[in-house]
Amino acid sequence: MTQHTGFTLWFTGMSGAGKSTLAAALRDELRGKGHRVEVLDGDEVRQSLSKGLTFSREDRDANIRRIGFVARLLSRNGVVAIAAAISPYRALRDEVRGQHEAPFVVILAECALDELIRRDVKGLYGKALRGEIAHMTGVSDPYERPETPEIAVHTDRESVSQSLSTILAWLADHDLIARS
Amino acid sequence: MTQHTGFTLWFTGMSGAGKSTLAAALRDELRGKGHRVEVLDGDEVRQSLSKGLTFSREDRDANIRRIGFVARLLSRNGVVAIAAAISPYRALRDEVRGQHEAPFVVILAECALDELIRRDVKGLYGKALRGEIAHMTGVSDPYERPETPEIAVHTDRESVSQSLSTILAWLADHDLIARS
Repeated sequence: MTQHTGFTLWFTGMSGAGKSTLAAALRDELRGKGHRVEVLDGDEVRQSLSKGLTFSREDRDANIRRIGFVARLLSRNGVVAIAAAISPYRALRDEVRGQHEAPFVVILAECALDELIRRDVKGLYGKALRGEIAHMTGVSDPYERPETPEIAVHTDRESVSQSLSTILAWLADHDLIARS
Repeated sequence: MTQHTGFTLWFTGMSGAGKSTLAAALRDELRGKGHRVEVLDGDEVRQSLSKGLTFSREDRDANIRRIGFVARLLSRNGVVAIAAAISPYRALRDEVRGQHEAPFVVILAECALDELIRRDVKGLYGKALRGEIAHMTGVSDPYERPETPEIAVHTDRESVSQSLSTILAWLADHDLIARS
């Protein structure tokens, strides 16, 4: 088994846009190609690295910095680190990118807000719209779209496998994975 | 380059016992043998993963859990994770060990307290003895020695290279590294 190059795939997008689903599908696909892969899911990391943090700007930033730190360590050691966190603030995403030695690829998971509200898988949009929770990205907190993401997928009008194909094609085009 | 097995080397011992020095020497040695290696130093991790944490029991535990989480992710992906943190509590070390998929090797860096007080590289023992700081392991806070560490080195009567040889011999005996 030869050693692969590590890199970080950084999903960003609003809650419910499909980041975790795509991250898991991508993990399986890349493991199948022989890569070492870890998914750093924002919600899960809150249980391990960030217990006790709130959804305030300051605590969100801290959570993103920690995910970025771990992604950096993994990616510079040959692992594909897949981060799946809302990461709403541009400055923080840029900060994390700036600390990476390995390639850093931003994937924007885009989905229209009315579709997110219609789906509302976790019931968070309903609660935010009724004022029951604060700091909901896209409702009561900003989401700063990346201006030039390496990859953008549109989960309101693509299937998971279509989005996955777009991502895999980009990675192959940029020599980060072998072409199938 | 073939892929190596990952594992975690977990240094434990009081402040000034030589954990960071040995961790850095070991990192260089293992990189020279072609391993991927990351050192997770307790003091440094406080800047990245654990900003704002104090030295209370609860916060120390949180810091150790975070180091353990990162070591686990690295080691299960083929990296040698070297943790260098006082990690004074047995229960926490055992918890971290229990979460590891990859081999987990405790290295006790042992040094007599009077020698640590004599050296007092960071000036912390003097401060603790004068009551200027609280929660100093070995003075005003407990250090729970591991009962059966995989490896023990005695930095008050061995040179760095002697301790290093002990560790490398153990790793080779247990097929974690190639014999030189």
